[in-house]
Amino acid sequence: MPYYIGDVVKSHEALIARTPEKFESSGVKVMQEVEVTGIDYKGGWVEISRGERKFFDVLVFATGAKVVTPEIEGINQPGVFFLRNLEDAIAIKKWIKDQGVKRAVILGGGFIGLEMAESLRTAGMQVTILHRDNLPAKRWNPEFSHWMRDTLHEKGVEFVPRINVTGIGKEETGNLRVQTTEGDWEAEIVIIATGVRPEVSLARSIGVNIGKTGAIAVDFGQRTSLINVYAVGDCSEVFHRVSKKWVNFPLGDIANKQGRVAGRNIGGRPLVFEGIVGAQSFRLFDLECAATGLSEKEAEEAGFSPISTIVWGSATAKALGRRRLGLQLIADRSSGKLLGAQAVGLAGAVGRINALSVALWSGMNLDQIGYLDFAYAPPFGPAWDIVHVAAQTLKRMI
Amino acid sequence: MPYYIGDVVKSHEALIARTPEKFESSGVKVMQEVEVTGIDYKGGWVEISRGERKFFDVLVFATGAKVVTPEIEGINQPGVFFLRNLEDAIAIKKWIKDQGVKRAVILGGGFIGLEMAESLRTAGMQVTILHRDNLPAKRWNPEFSHWMRDTLHEKGVEFVPRINVTGIGKEETGNLRVQTTEGDWEAEIVIIATGVRPEVSLARSIGVNIGKTGAIAVDFGQRTSLINVYAVGDCSEVFHRVSKKWVNFPLGDIANKQGRVAGRNIGGRPLVFEGIVGAQSFRLFDLECAATGLSEKEAEEAGFSPISTIVWGSATAKALGRRRLGLQLIADRSSGKLLGAQAVGLAGAVGRINALSVALWSGMNLDQIGYLDFAYAPPFGPAWDIVHVAAQTLKRMI
Repeated sequence: MPYYIGDVVKSHEALIARTPEKFESSGVKVMQEVEVTGIDYKGGWVEISRGERKFFDVLVFATGAKVVTPEIEGINQPGVFFLRNLEDAIAIKKWIKDQGVKRAVILGGGFIGLEMAESLRTAGMQVTILHRDNLPAKRWNPEFSHWMRDTLHEKGVEFVPRINVTGIGKEETGNLRVQTTEGDWEAEIVIIATGVRPEVSLARSIGVNIGKTGAIAVDFGQRTSLINVYAVGDCSEVFHRVSKKWVNFPLGDIANKQGRVAGRNIGGRPLVFEGIVGAQSFRLFDLECAATGLSEKEAEEAGFSPISTIVWGSATAKALGRRRLGLQLIADRSSGKLLGAQAVGLAGAVGRINALSVALWSGMNLDQIGYLDFAYAPPFGPAWDIVHVAAQTLKRMI
Repeated sequence: MPYYIGDVVKSHEALIARTPEKFESSGVKVMQEVEVTGIDYKGGWVEISRGERKFFDVLVFATGAKVVTPEIEGINQPGVFFLRNLEDAIAIKKWIKDQGVKRAVILGGGFIGLEMAESLRTAGMQVTILHRDNLPAKRWNPEFSHWMRDTLHEKGVEFVPRINVTGIGKEETGNLRVQTTEGDWEAEIVIIATGVRPEVSLARSIGVNIGKTGAIAVDFGQRTSLINVYAVGDCSEVFHRVSKKWVNFPLGDIANKQGRVAGRNIGGRPLVFEGIVGAQSFRLFDLECAATGLSEKEAEEAGFSPISTIVWGSATAKALGRRRLGLQLIADRSSGKLLGAQAVGLAGAVGRINALSVALWSGMNLDQIGYLDFAYAPPFGPAWDIVHVAAQTLKRMI
């Protein structure tokens, strides 16, 4: 019987928490609120917190990621929350309600911090993002990050760049005081969204190979270096089809795919996971923000000779009003192949990035992308879509 | 000097009509309101309506399509309009304004008729669609067409199926009376949207090869059977990459691409047009309607052994409310390759059909599509996108 350590499949946490009986009726036993305290690989058992041994034929690591805890004084006190799993979300909601939170400070302006800012702002709170870098969402081109920052300001979210948090104190009123190099912010809640790293300590303890990324090394069937031991989700690596490297890409859709691939291989219906192209997206108020493949910097690091361009246009034909949309394409100078794309827009960004993800998956070049057949109609784009325009523009630059 | 017959590029008609000086400043002479009455291919000249001869080195047919005129008594009278080009649209707008039109009857429930119904209804008119078949948009699966019909009714557009129009009469009041096998409809405007066919009479007159589709046969560089004679747009054929057949697909984005390909080849910077996959879309009130590749029927006609499934889901993750979206995938039983897809939804249909258009372009199979990497975020879809679900479902059916 396979034994899963951690969440079976990340996005199913809610399901697991609420309806373990659903799993049980399918013959899957879900033990809740247990901790695995040790594993004897040769003996074929795991030790759980109650001291009990659970025997396995097959072991699956689905231990996910853990938050990176910044070294800040006062970070471990009530009202300061990390954002990782469903329990965190429930605790945050409860705190907001119980304390009547009016002011929130978010540490970190990555896409998780941005999504959180939207949620809290939409719920009526006064929200401040304190960010180490100059602009939010550093994987995105600065032109796009500027638009995100402006959107935050328009929606009444304070975005403070280039700032170091030195401590979190407590007022006599009970309020939290976030101390920084640029002054203090008072709030009733502080949310830390400064990133995650793969949780691999148990895997490491039994000698499973850990990749350069710090995540568990796996093959295309989710097998680790130890026989009958698999790893899936945020704790594992995944093959990036563009860089041809094994990467750690902690996203829920990838975790789902890996979970199913592992299950198929364990269950005797072999399946190969052909990897990812690095597609991701988030919404920021009215903005769709999406990216796929490699950024220009990542492409350089992967040994390509990238060239890129940004084209601004509209997600609808001119006659139907303008819905601003920007698209960056990144291609390899020598082969003309697409390496990556980013888009931010009032509409249409995700759809275009998904189409370009398929193009990346197939290794298309700019000539092909410049003349791709899309489902054109004026409400959804001009006859020459921004994808065509960008591909042809970039091709001329090579 | 190349000589273009017809609209240079279809979607640029508005531009041409309004700003011929734009073209002229680039050295392109635009003669308006002239008719080509004959061509002497060997002599290398065309005769225009004033009797004048225009000499050419290269000739481009961009004659577009002409409306199919149904044999209906009274069809050629004021208030009855065809819908083909910018002039038609301007005349319709003028008539609506001058006559204070309150009731409109549209003949034909294809996607042009549906788009027209939305426009007129949104402008406050009482609108009736009289349709020969059972359901609108016959290229789409009946499940989707049912939703379109229900949407028409919800929005207050009368859709009358299985009806034959026998004549259009005139009331003493000046109103039009559309006579049918099922009774009469009174209206101040009647719009005929019963389809188009390629306009090839001039091309035929000089012996240019006409394909089986009735459109001008071209190669991958838009060359016709006669040296230095090209054809582009709705009057020409285009290569369908899925059926591997030359088809006539009168859509504006394809015309644009063909125009540029011809221009490049004429201008000495050769370019191959690799064809289409049959992507198209239209909006119907709140609905995005899109399709690509072959329908099940078209796949059978093209010699495949198709199998298909329809999956219903949402364009957003469950936690963010439900935005209904249906997706049909059509695949080949023997190879497992995707042959076509259709989607109708309150959001997200066009983006998904575009991604699947790229998959069709590259000849992907269901195994690959079932695990494609998309830019997942809850506002834009569940972690297992409807595309993944449909591909895996269909794969299991084979």
